[in-house]
Amino acid sequence: MSDYILISKASESCDKTVTLKGWISNLRSSGKISFIELRDGSGFIQVVAAKNDLDEASIAVAGELTLESAISVTGVIVKHPKKEGVYEMQATSLELIHKTDNYPIGRKEHGPDFLLQHRHLWLRSKKQWAIQRIRDTAVYAIITFLKENAFTRIDSPIITSTACEDTTSLFEFEYFDVGTGYLSQSGQMYLEAALAAHGRVYDFGPVFRAEKSKTRKHLTEFWMMDAEMAFFEHEQNMQIQEQLVMYVIDQVLTQNAEELEILERDTSKLSGIKAPFIRKTHSEIVAILRERGSEITEETDLGAKDEEILSEIFDQPIFIDRWPAKIKAFYMKRCPDNPTFSLASDLMATEGYGELIGGSERECDADVLLKYMGENKVPVEDFEWYLDARRYGSVPHSGFGIGLERLVSWLSGIDHIRETIPFPRTIYRYTP
Amino acid sequence: MSDYILISKASESCDKTVTLKGWISNLRSSGKISFIELRDGSGFIQVVAAKNDLDEASIAVAGELTLESAISVTGVIVKHPKKEGVYEMQATSLELIHKTDNYPIGRKEHGPDFLLQHRHLWLRSKKQWAIQRIRDTAVYAIITFLKENAFTRIDSPIITSTACEDTTSLFEFEYFDVGTGYLSQSGQMYLEAALAAHGRVYDFGPVFRAEKSKTRKHLTEFWMMDAEMAFFEHEQNMQIQEQLVMYVIDQVLTQNAEELEILERDTSKLSGIKAPFIRKTHSEIVAILRERGSEITEETDLGAKDEEILSEIFDQPIFIDRWPAKIKAFYMKRCPDNPTFSLASDLMATEGYGELIGGSERECDADVLLKYMGENKVPVEDFEWYLDARRYGSVPHSGFGIGLERLVSWLSGIDHIRETIPFPRTIYRYTP
Repeated sequence: MSDYILISKASESCDKTVTLKGWISNLRSSGKISFIELRDGSGFIQVVAAKNDLDEASIAVAGELTLESAISVTGVIVKHPKKEGVYEMQATSLELIHKTDNYPIGRKEHGPDFLLQHRHLWLRSKKQWAIQRIRDTAVYAIITFLKENAFTRIDSPIITSTACEDTTSLFEFEYFDVGTGYLSQSGQMYLEAALAAHGRVYDFGPVFRAEKSKTRKHLTEFWMMDAEMAFFEHEQNMQIQEQLVMYVIDQVLTQNAEELEILERDTSKLSGIKAPFIRKTHSEIVAILRERGSEITEETDLGAKDEEILSEIFDQPIFIDRWPAKIKAFYMKRCPDNPTFSLASDLMATEGYGELIGGSERECDADVLLKYMGENKVPVEDFEWYLDARRYGSVPHSGFGIGLERLVSWLSGIDHIRETIPFPRTIYRYTP
Repeated sequence: MSDYILISKASESCDKTVTLKGWISNLRSSGKISFIELRDGSGFIQVVAAKNDLDEASIAVAGELTLESAISVTGVIVKHPKKEGVYEMQATSLELIHKTDNYPIGRKEHGPDFLLQHRHLWLRSKKQWAIQRIRDTAVYAIITFLKENAFTRIDSPIITSTACEDTTSLFEFEYFDVGTGYLSQSGQMYLEAALAAHGRVYDFGPVFRAEKSKTRKHLTEFWMMDAEMAFFEHEQNMQIQEQLVMYVIDQVLTQNAEELEILERDTSKLSGIKAPFIRKTHSEIVAILRERGSEITEETDLGAKDEEILSEIFDQPIFIDRWPAKIKAFYMKRCPDNPTFSLASDLMATEGYGELIGGSERECDADVLLKYMGENKVPVEDFEWYLDARRYGSVPHSGFGIGLERLVSWLSGIDHIRETIPFPRTIYRYTP
């Protein structure tokens, strides 16, 4: 019996007889020869099944193959006659594992509702496969980068008793006899508490927004990586973000060339990115945008249109910093020269993909923080534990958060964020 | 100005002047010399601050140091006079970053309620630090192992519209105008759907049980890694679990020697573990246990007492397989020779730490699965998408799930599972 191998390992078995198992993603036949595009999750390969090379049983199998049927195929791995680095299989034996009839997703165009309803099958399509592979690479790259930079993973809780930031968009439920529970919107505050134990900490998990947003950039459940670093100030915070983004880009370009090609991603847009990224203050960005007709003011955030304008001017990511404090979170440290501004930075992607990372230095003085909490009507009694981090060995620290889906959207060149997560949840949909 | 380095890198700066920043975890003074145990999250180091070596300002600082105060200290890294491989710092300059007064957690014993209430500070204690470091290693080891074995990460959703297994212990909430949402108890079914896209898939995230369990082995929110593999049968399923567990043990023993020492873990219990693990059928285990006075029957699961008995007999993990189908989940494939048994396996840890992994081959025939669903009163209409995986290119597959906290509990030798997660949620507590 020949060895069963993954398609991704085919090149290592050139000129050998092996067995592949997978699903038929494409199929054409000239009568005497069937050309089967086989996929097994690790990759795609063309299987050439010529009647002359097959036994009787295999010929019968070849005759009844359909798209998305599962098969096992044995044959010799050979170099593609024309394409460098591409391998194919010359089949000697075909076995039907499971025949697929009436596969719901066809060659014709389907609307987004239909596709989302069949997400469990849609994931099999080439583009969706490629996106999830890039997501996988991005997650692993982030975690590896953090490991190599002495971060400790601190999984922050999902069930919380208080709202961290936005109190109007929480999913809430009954938590036994204890009270109302909320689904976390961010693990940041927990990381700030854990930072005095581990120095550099991160979490990476799902967060939730019960927000009635219908834009292509919103999900009600999405994945977020939060990082907090003791003894990091504003500039160092931006530097480590830059290094992380460069590392992720490099990993995706290296490991997902095939996937980027499937997605027709213009990789020059990614490979052209160089650190240090552009740095502009919010005020400078406002001036640039207003000159081009934007209605942004010195006290407002950027809109989608603003992000587009910026992407037409700049082909590098931009750190926008020195934000008006009143439109940023209360825990951000203020600029030493002018406390109406925060030591916050948003990192804007290229090509109009919007905000990749939000970060800031954090206020580390308990009294100052208490004052900000008062001004922002934060219920102090719920955050005594958070204040404790400033009462006992408080240190300068900074942190940032990456929304995984926006990052994957940018890397993949996919406009609609719902395609970047395996099973998207929006205000209209929580199935399958 | 001297370089600021992490304590974990001190050995690389031997005989050099560097700056360390961190918190004081221990302190004693002979008047002329202060011995400061400094921790910065990356490790611990002894700082020797002799008045003769310090300037006036530093002498003043040395005089007012307290436990958990944050300091910056500059000095020369030297080899410990007696301990091989240990380094210390001879301080030349001390700077107080933030002084801690009345730190709530003292040298005296505190009850669990007090400690859980102060979890954000308790995390700083040496033992808790060590446990989270081991957790970090375990998570990274699992993810790395899966990466190297061609798995793709598929983050399964937390918000679901249906219950996967246990319908009596769900957290539920209102999901916009769409219906009732539930917090996921397992991502397994989603992985089974995604497996036809990626072949080998895993998720690793929080899952929830609104179960009124008060044992030391229960949390309402905990982390679970689920894996599903196309074309894996029962025996291969156990083999990959074995390889994964061996890899994690090796990584923890290699990277967390200091942490295991802090926890006074008997590492011989871990280093003595060898693959292949013991394999026994449920029936064989029942016979062994009943002989020793257990009341377990051929149709019941093991209790905590049973796990203890086994750990007294065996010093290796045990795969218990061939379970009575009626006490296992409906989607498990039955034993070909006798369908009253399932091709399921539970992996029992050593030393009475209980179940580490649960896994099985999955039923891949839609009609058979439908029959089991009927017998188990599973609402078929909610699981059409799950059945679709068997309708279109169904393939033999198996999977398993690891409860992270139980794994960390075993590795660390910590009896109480609430110490293995940064911010534990139990039926009594969801703060801080």
